[in-house]
Amino acid sequence: MAKQEKIVVIGAGLCGTLLAIHLAQRGYEVSLHEQRADMRKMEVEGGRSINLALSSRGLMALERVGLKDEVLTHCIPMHGRMIHSVAGDLRLSRYSGRDDEYINSVSRGGLNMALLDKADSFPNLTIHFEQKCTHVALETATATFLDAQGNSHVVVGDLLIGTDGAGSAVRRSMMAQSTKLLFNFSQHFLRSGYKELSIPPTTTGGYRIEKNALHIWPRGAYMMIALPNEDGSFTVTMFHPYEGEAGFNTLDTPAKVRAFFATHYADVLPHLIDLDADYAANPVGTLGTIKCYPWEAYGKSLIMGDAAHAIVPFYGQGMNAAFEDVRVFDELIDEFDGNWAQIFHAFSEHRPTNTNAIADLAIDNFTEMQDKVDDEDFIKKRRLEMILEDRFPDYYSKYSLVTFKPELSYAEAMSKGRRQDEFLLDLVSREEVDHLDLEAVLRAVQAL
Amino acid sequence: MAKQEKIVVIGAGLCGTLLAIHLAQRGYEVSLHEQRADMRKMEVEGGRSINLALSSRGLMALERVGLKDEVLTHCIPMHGRMIHSVAGDLRLSRYSGRDDEYINSVSRGGLNMALLDKADSFPNLTIHFEQKCTHVALETATATFLDAQGNSHVVVGDLLIGTDGAGSAVRRSMMAQSTKLLFNFSQHFLRSGYKELSIPPTTTGGYRIEKNALHIWPRGAYMMIALPNEDGSFTVTMFHPYEGEAGFNTLDTPAKVRAFFATHYADVLPHLIDLDADYAANPVGTLGTIKCYPWEAYGKSLIMGDAAHAIVPFYGQGMNAAFEDVRVFDELIDEFDGNWAQIFHAFSEHRPTNTNAIADLAIDNFTEMQDKVDDEDFIKKRRLEMILEDRFPDYYSKYSLVTFKPELSYAEAMSKGRRQDEFLLDLVSREEVDHLDLEAVLRAVQAL
Repeated sequence: MAKQEKIVVIGAGLCGTLLAIHLAQRGYEVSLHEQRADMRKMEVEGGRSINLALSSRGLMALERVGLKDEVLTHCIPMHGRMIHSVAGDLRLSRYSGRDDEYINSVSRGGLNMALLDKADSFPNLTIHFEQKCTHVALETATATFLDAQGNSHVVVGDLLIGTDGAGSAVRRSMMAQSTKLLFNFSQHFLRSGYKELSIPPTTTGGYRIEKNALHIWPRGAYMMIALPNEDGSFTVTMFHPYEGEAGFNTLDTPAKVRAFFATHYADVLPHLIDLDADYAANPVGTLGTIKCYPWEAYGKSLIMGDAAHAIVPFYGQGMNAAFEDVRVFDELIDEFDGNWAQIFHAFSEHRPTNTNAIADLAIDNFTEMQDKVDDEDFIKKRRLEMILEDRFPDYYSKYSLVTFKPELSYAEAMSKGRRQDEFLLDLVSREEVDHLDLEAVLRAVQAL
Repeated sequence: MAKQEKIVVIGAGLCGTLLAIHLAQRGYEVSLHEQRADMRKMEVEGGRSINLALSSRGLMALERVGLKDEVLTHCIPMHGRMIHSVAGDLRLSRYSGRDDEYINSVSRGGLNMALLDKADSFPNLTIHFEQKCTHVALETATATFLDAQGNSHVVVGDLLIGTDGAGSAVRRSMMAQSTKLLFNFSQHFLRSGYKELSIPPTTTGGYRIEKNALHIWPRGAYMMIALPNEDGSFTVTMFHPYEGEAGFNTLDTPAKVRAFFATHYADVLPHLIDLDADYAANPVGTLGTIKCYPWEAYGKSLIMGDAAHAIVPFYGQGMNAAFEDVRVFDELIDEFDGNWAQIFHAFSEHRPTNTNAIADLAIDNFTEMQDKVDDEDFIKKRRLEMILEDRFPDYYSKYSLVTFKPELSYAEAMSKGRRQDEFLLDLVSREEVDHLDLEAVLRAVQAL
């Protein structure tokens, strides 16, 4: 059924394209604008594309537009963290005690293209590429775009939604009206950055290290991780401080980099075939958290996804949170029966509590992944959690609450999960896991 | 002794002018640039100017440039909070149990003009008015200004310091290089705003309400305060939410305003001679907190004062914190013997902890002033603190630690003060103040 409203969506990344599909499914006239060219028409380096961890919250949103099964065929299950010690010993720390709970390595580009293809199937959804947003009039849902030929286009909607990422032009317009909108904003950068490297496939197209895991080389104040790609390669990411012995600013020659890897990442060095070239070519990216409030202005304009809440990648929840935004927003359209002022207001009032929670959890995980996964009590706690999850279908660890229980909000998962963690860490520091009365532990956890 | 370096200071408000004087005293070549015209040449409405609370931290900084005594002659001591109940009953809650500890109402304009006069006395300090900063190159300490005639001026310094207030152009330049500088930034607005009103002097030039107090009309979710001016008038400030029964957006006609005042602020209504005109003419201002880090870039450019840390006015510490910035900075010049990269770095690394503390304390006081000054346990705690301060020279309440003990940093005052408050509130909720063993209380507080 065709609806009256015209909705302008700015940014055809993962969040914006999924949002546009939801709105088109409902019959609205959707105009989706993207700064970059159509990635489906670009040459891409096979397999080397950046990958992301897709888990239950993201899958739940994809299911609403009928894309879950198709996307899953291109995913590589990762059942746990494969922890690489300095000596090269391996230890798998599972994500859940239940076999059907795991996360998925998926290609960002591949997923985005699948969403764009789906979007193209709606006659009431048009995608405009190479349209750089130069101005937004929040009050009137009007955006101005500059195309690749240097021509300016003004697009007027009934509503405007910015899904234009961490550097959002729509959010910048809100910032420019700070005192009028009482616009709260914060940006916080870690004093570490990241650089991507690559492990290519074997000559026969196989995986050089365990395929079905998220690999971690935890080293206290820095770390490296690797996620598998469909073609047999791994995308490797160094998370290092800028300064100091392990700092990107210190490791500034191929010789220094190789010497550092030979000492600290020795087991993977033979697999980093293009280390020198990758290290030289790939930039150091920043790791920042953005929070803001409100997300809506004048009942006409709204932001969601990274535009509203950019987070650091250490919980693997950036995309999942953005997809959950779309699912929650879609549910509000039903709840308020298309009254947009109410929908925007409710979304802006209630959703930030949850995205703030996952932002904070992701910061916590930065420390956990670098420094805690090797800690004795932490390992005991994870072992106890695996046993509990295996034995009791109702038990969920903090990680599982966040990752595998989308019916629970991030804020609830954080609150419950942190209480559980504190209790269990105290317990395993005092008692042997094998001597515990598991029923009693479960009851104690449930009573927290 | 003349020094080599040329220092460009942007913003000739209270902080920038005091800073410029300190630098000129040390012999540096100082170029001070102000967006507005010279306030000494403008017509000002006598006595109606905004007033501020000047206390020990601010006075300590003024003493270093020999201005303390002169400024104090224009101050009106305020010995405590004069609390006005809805029924019109008055109760004085003293700021300290010691008679020589009080805060001072001072005219912002008067103080700024005294600083500008002092600045004019240095041949190595030049002040340039009507110079709007349009661009800053942080790396090269270069600023571009637009004058009133529309001409552009480029000023190159060896160092550049932005004291250009909450809307700082220098901070904006840092923000524009966010990822390069890893520039953390937050702005947070209260959901209340403020509007200024006025109580004129009596026909004989006297004060209509108690002269030597900071008056408060605490009403739970909103309040009004009044500070005395030298000419017998008071500057009155309403702090109200934007929305709701007491909201500025609701009180939108003279009749509604008068009815509201007749019910909630009845005792002062007869003194608000120009209420209708003041209410209509004066805008609603926002109440925001700004925090950021780092404060320096490239060892060449720096921000301080409101440009680096705007706070809400509820602890009366905005100007005092900015003046303390200048004092701390001046001490660092000695400590690092003029090595500017080290001075800027040390200031940027250590000072924000303290300005963050006073920012948070000021937010706490918003609730305290509106809602707690009438609370029974709060009143008992304040009474006990007055007794302790009167009896023991070493005892300082949280308020006194912040306001009257400048040798203690804001962060230490907050930490110590909060622990004391918690202890004392618990104590007075359980025991009668008059039955307490004061020596034992002092020992317990000191042991916290």
